[in-house]
Amino acid sequence: MTETANTAASQPRVEIATLIEFIARALEAAGIPPGDARRVAALMAEADARGGDAHGVFRLAQYVKQIQSGAVNPRPNIRIVGQKAGTALVDGDNALGHLVMKRATELAMEKARQGGVGWVGTRRSNHAGPAQLYTRMAAAQNMIGIYFCVGNANLLPPWGGTEALLSTNPIAIAVPASRHPVISLDMATTNTAFGKIRLKAQRNEPMPEGWMIDKEGKPLTDPKRASEGFLLPIGGAKGYGLALMIGLLAGTLNGAAFGRDVVDYTVDSKTPSNAGQSILAVDIAAFADVKTFKEQVDEVWEVMKSSPTLPGVDEVRLPGEHSEQIYRERMAHGVPLSDGQRKVLDELADRLGILPLQ
Amino acid sequence: MTETANTAASQPRVEIATLIEFIARALEAAGIPPGDARRVAALMAEADARGGDAHGVFRLAQYVKQIQSGAVNPRPNIRIVGQKAGTALVDGDNALGHLVMKRATELAMEKARQGGVGWVGTRRSNHAGPAQLYTRMAAAQNMIGIYFCVGNANLLPPWGGTEALLSTNPIAIAVPASRHPVISLDMATTNTAFGKIRLKAQRNEPMPEGWMIDKEGKPLTDPKRASEGFLLPIGGAKGYGLALMIGLLAGTLNGAAFGRDVVDYTVDSKTPSNAGQSILAVDIAAFADVKTFKEQVDEVWEVMKSSPTLPGVDEVRLPGEHSEQIYRERMAHGVPLSDGQRKVLDELADRLGILPLQ
Repeated sequence: MTETANTAASQPRVEIATLIEFIARALEAAGIPPGDARRVAALMAEADARGGDAHGVFRLAQYVKQIQSGAVNPRPNIRIVGQKAGTALVDGDNALGHLVMKRATELAMEKARQGGVGWVGTRRSNHAGPAQLYTRMAAAQNMIGIYFCVGNANLLPPWGGTEALLSTNPIAIAVPASRHPVISLDMATTNTAFGKIRLKAQRNEPMPEGWMIDKEGKPLTDPKRASEGFLLPIGGAKGYGLALMIGLLAGTLNGAAFGRDVVDYTVDSKTPSNAGQSILAVDIAAFADVKTFKEQVDEVWEVMKSSPTLPGVDEVRLPGEHSEQIYRERMAHGVPLSDGQRKVLDELADRLGILPLQ
Repeated sequence: MTETANTAASQPRVEIATLIEFIARALEAAGIPPGDARRVAALMAEADARGGDAHGVFRLAQYVKQIQSGAVNPRPNIRIVGQKAGTALVDGDNALGHLVMKRATELAMEKARQGGVGWVGTRRSNHAGPAQLYTRMAAAQNMIGIYFCVGNANLLPPWGGTEALLSTNPIAIAVPASRHPVISLDMATTNTAFGKIRLKAQRNEPMPEGWMIDKEGKPLTDPKRASEGFLLPIGGAKGYGLALMIGLLAGTLNGAAFGRDVVDYTVDSKTPSNAGQSILAVDIAAFADVKTFKEQVDEVWEVMKSSPTLPGVDEVRLPGEHSEQIYRERMAHGVPLSDGQRKVLDELADRLGILPLQ
């Protein structure tokens, strides 16, 4: 993310409000009703504002393609197919994932407000942008948010294996503080994300050892040969275990795709993906005085910051701290867009017959 | 664990029932009421049966020391200090952790049976053995169990730092299958556990790179110098993030120790540890037909197994598979005990004036 942010510093900026308007226009032109288009646009622009550059407007053209091919349903009936006091299963009716996950998160928070905890799973959902969008919704309501999802492409074999049967299945957790930003972890269970490998390939730079191995189990450092190898999970067998468990929690439990039936929508934009996600909201008030708890989280923040550092390290960082800095900067000055990205969006505007991004 | 199991193969065995009797005798002699002593003994022996050799009878002498010094309360009033339909906070009154966690897990399952999900946190608890004991209780009731806890010793600095402010804070998840064993992940958020480092030191073997670094950030491979360095988290900053979040969920949220106030009971057996744990039970029936779900988990098992393997790898393993093999073997043939371990237990029996392990 640091690399992206540095490269981005010199690029022309687009204001968040302008970005939201453009995304909403594009989605509407593709057939999404105005209210839904604005809801999705706001979340996609928030992804860009938070530095999740590969999860925001970057995905717009792909989403439009899916809508136009019929793989994504522009007029879905998102509904609860089963629920108990603390849980629900939401059928996304193949809507844009943001709509499904927004609904699921709101429902989980409502249940947590009543019973202390809410766990909502989704099936027949789609790519919903960065996980932290949803855990942060819970944190903003004095709750802890936890999110699991089945990633959209299988790039990881089971540990010791050579068939890519697992995705980078991410986990996200957000916990609110008082004076300090939300502590927000949003991580893939692999050492790197595929986007970073593409970036290395573009720049003709080798990958560090530990990112990928080839089919012989040897380190793969040439990013141009990425298709011949596999991502490595964090901590070896442990990261594989986490990716597998997350797949069971967000996929299998919800009746969503996991394993060989995962559809990579960036390659196949015609087949519905049956994506699965799970969101968990825990009401802090069910365990502690909210004000006191948030001050204790501040204290944890400060204790971690107070650690002396290794040679060459300026300071210890908390999860979500860097993303928060980017967010504040971009909310004030706009989101940087490369010439290449702008060109893609101009072409999209042209195809859709809408006003381009100003 | 494989190493331990191999070394163990040639050692004399003790039957599980005999081990339970001995542990219960020792705890009773230390002042634990008979019913509680048997409950804890059964869980400790299960830890040994499952191959968690550093979490079973190995800890008995330490627990007895804590009880005798007053750091652990032999006649606790474990009580619910707050609850909602889906959540509860349990005050362990400084009981042996097994008693607190058994109560917490049963409560979480009861809540899950009612509302689909139950989340129970503990404070003023103590070391409770391996996490999988509790997640497997949920799996045995057709539920998914998820467990977080604050480890008992700070061995990990925040990423980039040099002050050990975090423990190996583990996460465990168990999901039941039908024909196949429970898929059970039970992992520390560090690349290795401290017990393995002690083993390397005993054997005069170097540690592989990646286990520890020294205060300069350089790889530390001499296990005799372990006290000069730090454990490394899985996936670098990611594992640090996970350990931190788990600390917030199992410590801070519950009003339990986390950060500088963590007490390592293996060093300080006099100060109550205020240990914190969180257990989450999700009722599968709230999301799916239980039979169908468990068959789908079988399918996931088989799909992972079907992956071709890297050179030198016999077969892909599922989380918990190895532990299940050990469990079956040890339930049939008993738990191996080294001469050294047996000597420690004989001395303990002598001090307590009880019948030794037969």
